[in-house]
Amino acid sequence: MSSGRPSSTVDLNRVDLEAVAALAGRIQEQPETADTIWRATVEWEGGFRSSASVRQFAPIPSDEPEALGGTDTAPNPVEQLLAALGNCLAVGYAANASAAGIAIDDLRVEVDGDLDLHAFLGLRDGNAGFDDIRVRVHLDTDAPDDAVRALHEKVTRTSPVGHTLSRAVPTSIELG
Amino acid sequence: MSSGRPSSTVDLNRVDLEAVAALAGRIQEQPETADTIWRATVEWEGGFRSSASVRQFAPIPSDEPEALGGTDTAPNPVEQLLAALGNCLAVGYAANASAAGIAIDDLRVEVDGDLDLHAFLGLRDGNAGFDDIRVRVHLDTDAPDDAVRALHEKVTRTSPVGHTLSRAVPTSIELG
Repeated sequence: MSSGRPSSTVDLNRVDLEAVAALAGRIQEQPETADTIWRATVEWEGGFRSSASVRQFAPIPSDEPEALGGTDTAPNPVEQLLAALGNCLAVGYAANASAAGIAIDDLRVEVDGDLDLHAFLGLRDGNAGFDDIRVRVHLDTDAPDDAVRALHEKVTRTSPVGHTLSRAVPTSIELG
Repeated sequence: MSSGRPSSTVDLNRVDLEAVAALAGRIQEQPETADTIWRATVEWEGGFRSSASVRQFAPIPSDEPEALGGTDTAPNPVEQLLAALGNCLAVGYAANASAAGIAIDDLRVEVDGDLDLHAFLGLRDGNAGFDDIRVRVHLDTDAPDDAVRALHEKVTRTSPVGHTLSRAVPTSIELG
């Protein structure tokens, strides 16, 4: 942290609100800078094992439980998807709580979802994905209830992964 | 691998087809065993850092790039979501290629998606998630083109993460 920044904006929940505000300012001046592209590249490693590379980071390993034919060395893809939702909501809470002056003492997000294996296994046509997804957010804070409710509403209204799951996203899958 | 299994089913693409067939058999006898629940639990670690725990595995770390106010120590949640899709398609290819007798020499899956930051940053209402997601599958195999096309069609028709993204999933997010 550079000197001269008010600690109330930099330190609350350890969120760098100035960086977020600077990004928002850039986007208001040049709206096209809001158009971002995100990427991952997956390499198959044999059986049901693979790993996903994102930028400079260690690859994210993937496998399936033994009951599904895998070797159970890593979370499977549908668990990774639930993990992404929980991680996204944590960012949303941290960002919006800090903007609202709410100190978070602790935050835990539990995500689960129901999935019928029939379609994945080719036993019938239909939805191979989650039928529904449930999230329970456990937030420790001294903020008043109405501020917490407003925070929750803001987070759920602006979650990138939440919206990606709750909307039908045009998805093209091409061999090439 | 236990002795006595025919190597043609166990070894092709290192997929344990017998385990997959056993699961399908169990589900045909007891359809309710197809109803699975998957879970992840996220702990916030301050700022935009968090980690997602799945069963016994090492937590999946999460952060945001510095331009978005993070400390850039791990893939961010929307990148994790694209990674989950690529990993899921890798499983689908491995499973269905093995069932069809197709040997995979190499498989790489590139995923990207467009996301407009306006809604996430609260600069306007609307879709905070991906506007679209594109996947390019690079499959090395000696199988004939029509077999590869049939494989591709089967994989895209039965992908749990693919369906979760391309459909609107009922998602409840509760404080509690």
